[in-house]
Amino acid sequence: MKPIVTLLSDFGWKDSYVGAMKGVILTRAPETQVIDITHEVPRHQVRAGAWILKEVVPLFPPGTIHLAVVDPGVGTSRRPLLIETALGLFVGPDNGLFSWIPQASTAIARGLDADRFHRLPVSPTFHGRDVFASVVGHLAAGVAPNELGTTLADWKRIPEPRLVVGPEESLGEVVVVDGFGNLVSNVAVPPEAWGRGQRVWVRGHDCGLLLRTYGDVEPGQWVSYVGSAGTVEVAVRHGSAAEQGGFREGDEVRLCSAES
Amino acid sequence: MKPIVTLLSDFGWKDSYVGAMKGVILTRAPETQVIDITHEVPRHQVRAGAWILKEVVPLFPPGTIHLAVVDPGVGTSRRPLLIETALGLFVGPDNGLFSWIPQASTAIARGLDADRFHRLPVSPTFHGRDVFASVVGHLAAGVAPNELGTTLADWKRIPEPRLVVGPEESLGEVVVVDGFGNLVSNVAVPPEAWGRGQRVWVRGHDCGLLLRTYGDVEPGQWVSYVGSAGTVEVAVRHGSAAEQGGFREGDEVRLCSAES
Amino acid sequence: MKPIVTLLSDFGWKDSYVGAMKGVILTRAPETQVIDITHEVPRHQVRAGAWILKEVVPLFPPGTIHLAVVDPGVGTSRRPLLIETALGLFVGPDNGLFSWIPQASTAIARGLDADRFHRLPVSPTFHGRDVFASVVGHLAAGVAPNELGTTLADWKRIPEPRLVVGPEESLGEVVVVDGFGNLVSNVAVPPEAWGRGQRVWVRGHDCGLLLRTYGDVEPGQWVSYVGSAGTVEVAVRHGSAAEQGGFREGDEVRLCSAES
Repeated sequence: MKPIVTLLSDFGWKDSYVGAMKGVILTRAPETQVIDITHEVPRHQVRAGAWILKEVVPLFPPGTIHLAVVDPGVGTSRRPLLIETALGLFVGPDNGLFSWIPQASTAIARGLDADRFHRLPVSPTFHGRDVFASVVGHLAAGVAPNELGTTLADWKRIPEPRLVVGPEESLGEVVVVDGFGNLVSNVAVPPEAWGRGQRVWVRGHDCGLLLRTYGDVEPGQWVSYVGSAGTVEVAVRHGSAAEQGGFREGDEVRLCSAES
Repeated sequence: MKPIVTLLSDFGWKDSYVGAMKGVILTRAPETQVIDITHEVPRHQVRAGAWILKEVVPLFPPGTIHLAVVDPGVGTSRRPLLIETALGLFVGPDNGLFSWIPQASTAIARGLDADRFHRLPVSPTFHGRDVFASVVGHLAAGVAPNELGTTLADWKRIPEPRLVVGPEESLGEVVVVDGFGNLVSNVAVPPEAWGRGQRVWVRGHDCGLLLRTYGDVEPGQWVSYVGSAGTVEVAVRHGSAAEQGGFREGDEVRLCSAES
Repeated sequence: MKPIVTLLSDFGWKDSYVGAMKGVILTRAPETQVIDITHEVPRHQVRAGAWILKEVVPLFPPGTIHLAVVDPGVGTSRRPLLIETALGLFVGPDNGLFSWIPQASTAIARGLDADRFHRLPVSPTFHGRDVFASVVGHLAAGVAPNELGTTLADWKRIPEPRLVVGPEESLGEVVVVDGFGNLVSNVAVPPEAWGRGQRVWVRGHDCGLLLRTYGDVEPGQWVSYVGSAGTVEVAVRHGSAAEQGGFREGDEVRLCSAES
């Protein structure tokens, strides 16, 4: 089976940077299928990139190689990283970007110190091309992870968004405002608890009872529901909850029994 | 030959949604070539998506699987759909998105009711991942359409943009403002009628004689011509006709003999 | 090995144009791996496209077919072009877009005059689909370059950005403002000259000593460094140098010994 490589970055599509990484990978492993996840992670927002990886990584076939670059510290002492889990291989900066991938706690991490697998001389401002893509190309061509660097005792993990789960209420936050303007929170709702008369507040504003989907309200109305990540979301049907409510990442999300 | 799957959506590139669909497809059919048509259909604009499908579908090889999601009614009673024509397979919501594909009138339509081919539990807000991409993955892996759902007596077709063709004049509308700001209409001009001294009006504004291409006028000037869809278009050379003229989708386009 | 085709254009992602080109290619050569470089070259900016090609082409495997369309003169007398170098094949308009690819001076250029390899009738406004993508599909399917057109004695080369290299100072210009707002110049700095106490000015503004990378200054501060193209760049760490300094393409960049 041909290797699958996914790309995630905050490079945007307009420059040469995305194409440069693809070229470097394909030169080393021409049979690779290269898959764009996104290149529009908000600039330098490591947490936003970490959330997307958390969402998409479990959906790819085991053995997929994920290249991710949101790297405000490129060229500083932050290490280049290779992580192995049962789900796949992950290559990128050691800045927390891979914190929330499944099975992170049991992953094997390596520093990418075998520079014969890099594109030399390495540009201090574009490790995406000269270190990460080069290493990914070699991995796709069959080089074993242990040739690429020595194992690390630890690697950077950023804390999960704050979350307090209680018997009467749960308290979390808006982790992503998506492109539709929907507010995606980290407050998980187990399937057995759906539709039990629960109410949602965002930063103190009542966003109504937890419903099933957009279609449960009229266009233009607010709706709270369990979104595709299994967590509470708040939307304006056919509108933007973020714009209309002035909400943004980090805002407090509260879910509690409707009576309280 | 490996299967080809195209993706069209209004998800935008910035979120996890595009990557999620790709992962689900590749997990079920790792050899698939996944091709992005666009993820920037204007949000919830089913007609805009339908127009793009009409334009691109005939250009792909027969047997291509087209996954399209512009789905403001996700989670409501609108059905998930599989359509078969001689040109390929189409998977997405039954909301009119596939209205204008070639051979729509003779297509076989199925409701996607065999939920063993879905990703369970299905999120009420992300059928793109849990129903459509999952079904597309199974199709790409060789599952036959008739296993995925039972045939439907009918499916939703939205009307073509208004068009009145007469011997002296044709009356249509702007169906798309493209990214260059060009006005694309539905007024077809058969090749034998090109260059016969015809004049174009948009919402009552004289846009000049029908010429051959942008280069027939100077930069900054208005130009009417037969565009790549075989229909009348109006542009400002190296500028934006939509912005400069205040035109938009739905505006009336009239083509008539130059003397009238 | 399956053929690799890259796509570069100023079409943007929102319309049918990108999908149309992909369909035409895959119909002629279904095994092709189609790789998006960018579709967000600024509209009609041939020089911006030329710069991206210069950066990414050397990174792809030899034999790659590069389809590039930034084509403000589509439908005029500018010729459609096929260029062969040791690095690959290049298809697009003869308007200077391929001026700066490696080995341009020894390339073989052909006019695409064998219209049996075009998609007929050719739209005067969409050679990207009907000429370039069609020819690329045939190339990917194994048609030899000499079947596609006769050789040209010359083809359009646009001048390199102005550059004066002297013993004490070098004078160039901003060739690209990238998506981060960084100013990318054409003033090359050989590795042996890095870190020798040199100072950078942009349009007369002192942008400091040439450092190694962003991390050498605090967030919010200006930094000059040798960028991933091997040339002088100027950035604001975690900010936009273009916005904060009011700089843009064409602005003069001067590099000289720190004392002068």
